[in-house]
Amino acid sequence: MIDRRGFLRTTAIGSAAASICPAEPQQSMAGHEVTRSLAAWLVSSRKEEIPAAVRREALRTVLNWTGCAVGGSRHETVEIAIRALKPFCGPAQASVLGRKDRLDVLNTSLLNGVSSHIFDFDDTDLRTIVHPAGPVAPALLALAEYRAFSGADFLHALILGVEVECRIANAVYPQHYDIGWHITGTVGPFGAAAAAGKVLGLSEQQMVWALGIAATQPVGLREMFGTMTKSFHPGRAAQNGLTAALLAAQNFTSSDHSIEAARGWANVLSTARSYREITDNLGDRYQISFNSYKPFPCGVVIHPAIDGCLQLRAENQLAAKAIERIELRVHPLVLELTGRKTPQTGLEGKFSIYHAVAAAMVYGRVGEPEFSDLAVRDPAVIALRERVSATADQSVKEDQVRVTLLLNDGRRLDKFIEHATGSAKNPLSDAQLGSKFKGLAEGILPNGQVDRLINFCWNLEQAPDAGQLARLAAA
Amino acid sequence: MIDRRGFLRTTAIGSAAASICPAEPQQSMAGHEVTRSLAAWLVSSRKEEIPAAVRREALRTVLNWTGCAVGGSRHETVEIAIRALKPFCGPAQASVLGRKDRLDVLNTSLLNGVSSHIFDFDDTDLRTIVHPAGPVAPALLALAEYRAFSGADFLHALILGVEVECRIANAVYPQHYDIGWHITGTVGPFGAAAAAGKVLGLSEQQMVWALGIAATQPVGLREMFGTMTKSFHPGRAAQNGLTAALLAAQNFTSSDHSIEAARGWANVLSTARSYREITDNLGDRYQISFNSYKPFPCGVVIHPAIDGCLQLRAENQLAAKAIERIELRVHPLVLELTGRKTPQTGLEGKFSIYHAVAAAMVYGRVGEPEFSDLAVRDPAVIALRERVSATADQSVKEDQVRVTLLLNDGRRLDKFIEHATGSAKNPLSDAQLGSKFKGLAEGILPNGQVDRLINFCWNLEQAPDAGQLARLAAA
Repeated sequence: MIDRRGFLRTTAIGSAAASICPAEPQQSMAGHEVTRSLAAWLVSSRKEEIPAAVRREALRTVLNWTGCAVGGSRHETVEIAIRALKPFCGPAQASVLGRKDRLDVLNTSLLNGVSSHIFDFDDTDLRTIVHPAGPVAPALLALAEYRAFSGADFLHALILGVEVECRIANAVYPQHYDIGWHITGTVGPFGAAAAAGKVLGLSEQQMVWALGIAATQPVGLREMFGTMTKSFHPGRAAQNGLTAALLAAQNFTSSDHSIEAARGWANVLSTARSYREITDNLGDRYQISFNSYKPFPCGVVIHPAIDGCLQLRAENQLAAKAIERIELRVHPLVLELTGRKTPQTGLEGKFSIYHAVAAAMVYGRVGEPEFSDLAVRDPAVIALRERVSATADQSVKEDQVRVTLLLNDGRRLDKFIEHATGSAKNPLSDAQLGSKFKGLAEGILPNGQVDRLINFCWNLEQAPDAGQLARLAAA
Repeated sequence: MIDRRGFLRTTAIGSAAASICPAEPQQSMAGHEVTRSLAAWLVSSRKEEIPAAVRREALRTVLNWTGCAVGGSRHETVEIAIRALKPFCGPAQASVLGRKDRLDVLNTSLLNGVSSHIFDFDDTDLRTIVHPAGPVAPALLALAEYRAFSGADFLHALILGVEVECRIANAVYPQHYDIGWHITGTVGPFGAAAAAGKVLGLSEQQMVWALGIAATQPVGLREMFGTMTKSFHPGRAAQNGLTAALLAAQNFTSSDHSIEAARGWANVLSTARSYREITDNLGDRYQISFNSYKPFPCGVVIHPAIDGCLQLRAENQLAAKAIERIELRVHPLVLELTGRKTPQTGLEGKFSIYHAVAAAMVYGRVGEPEFSDLAVRDPAVIALRERVSATADQSVKEDQVRVTLLLNDGRRLDKFIEHATGSAKNPLSDAQLGSKFKGLAEGILPNGQVDRLINFCWNLEQAPDAGQLARLAAA
């Protein structure tokens, strides 16, 4: 290590985090070859080894991510980023989804990563709240347009990139997140580097370097939540990881121990770490198997109530004006997190259980438009919102709700949701993912193109050229 | 703040670093408006307010940085980075110093930042070991070629960028560095954003956002020292800060409290912080006044001995073969850090007091070539090296040395260096900076061009177009 005079110190100094917080034991022995072990596994992985169910989940991840990226593509955040960066962009190598813009591979990876996170509607690893596809898919997709590779290779690399992200996240969660890092942006560069490195055919040493160049470029303070910079995080993570892989492919050197070294990523960016989460049983299970997809563009604690109301509405063909009162019994966290009674903006609406169920009843769907400023100010929604009551109930689990509707005609309808749609025990069906996709993409792409795009995603493994996905998703 | 469900928590949670290390008090009240205060000062600063001595030091910083960037420009690290990234670069807007390459503004800022740090020969803020120009100058210079502005505006923005970097570094040093962050890469984005934001004419709110977008993109683990990725840090910091300013100029939003928030930069990236270092007495003193420049491309503890030997050699017109023995009495740290007796490579030579003084005597200069593999293996150097002895002496200060030469003809020559050249009390003269520049640039640029470039640097304040500096420094 180098002291303030710019000289190598020969004395051994442990991790600063460990020395400041001595309760945290060093894992230098156990962690000796973390980065290299991971790199060796990535380089040796063959797509034939990936179980069919894992590949299927990866297809669902691709479909969900693509829909989110198309859906977010016209947002002001994306418009501004393109306006700011376009004068400096390189050749028209890759497609910004949902738009006409074609930019160089690196800037395209940034922008598609931004788009996909705009609505906070992308996929979630429930253990670490990493949004796995956000940094990996845009890096891979932009690269696919530049260096044609097959859909099967794309899927394989995506699975590996998600594996790297989620394993590194598992190793430092929750301490790393609690410190204030937006974990998607900090593990994202590793995932993007691994995925891009795989399709670039990096050697083991190059993959080690790619992970190192990724390690030194973490993105994302949680302080940025609520601003455009939040969506910047997965995009920049994609771009940083892709840059790392491109540099490593030309033998740009970095540390051989970037994750586990005393002054490596896990020690510098977290107060605790478990390297076995990264290296144990590689290839025995795949983290993408645990990926989840939201049915509604808001935090998941509010999902059971929306789900229950939509089901009651559909089953009984109810109009909102037929409803006298809505009574909810919810997990206590619901009121803590979404107890806002009179939201004034669309964003505030996402933190109001009252708005969410009223909107579900009025509109019969809860997508991004139902969390717009307009929807929050809709007199019909406001009128119903004021007749919603919610009671915390310790017996109701986080993915549950009890809904009672009292109708104007005197009827009373009850619904108990045991596992909300989109929860671990009740994942979105393929058909529901398709509907979600349409809700995001329609109005941005022509309907026929939306159908072709969905179809392409489901058949990605048979596609000779994965880059076709990007071109189909462009406006 | 957002919990793992993606929902805003309404409960107040302090800094994780503070709660883990409770000895560290929160400064939330004191730090309430750190980012905005800094932004307001940056926006209101006028170049007429900067004292002449400060501007003169800034000119010396520009000259030193330009020489380092030209000198490093043909290194393998730069060659590889260009090879990897050129296919994705945008229009030929700006010049890579010392080379024929013209790339887009953002990639040029990256590459010139990389070049300038290759030899570890760039400027140093002695209090924090930040290399201040590394991230700021390349961002500004690339922008100057794209949006012509005057040399006086360039210099003003450089002074402000350095001010921001060093003040933020002062606020978290040494804890932030001790954790394992390469501080030049972590404070660098702030400096580059501030400097670029100034010449872009950002409003106060835009400057707040620019600092926020910079805050969320720190670069650099110290684990990367000894690899190409170390030089990547100031370059990427330049690119990230410039990107932040360009985005903010289009109203891309970020936090209003990115530095001081509970989950902002200072809390997430350091275990201690003093916000008064950032906001007290802005404009009363300028950090660039304390900038220092190395006379030799190696750590400063070895500088007194080199200095003493070069002086004895010149004063007595000595040839190396006239020397029987060299005896040194040095500060104890010298042997701890540079006690390597038989270095095998140029890099190892930088950690050998024996090689350094032998090379000084053999070649009569100590620049990068004297730390090459060739020089370390030169039989003449090796022969003399074996006749060098060094003794630790508590009475010798860090910037001092006692040199005794015993000559073959029986003479004995003594020299006591009280303050080594380049130390705080004996800074490099303008002439010495010019010589250093020539040593770096000659062989890369024609001699006439080197002279014109030096002249342009000294007269930068009168230049109507600062971008001319870059074009003069291109091959």
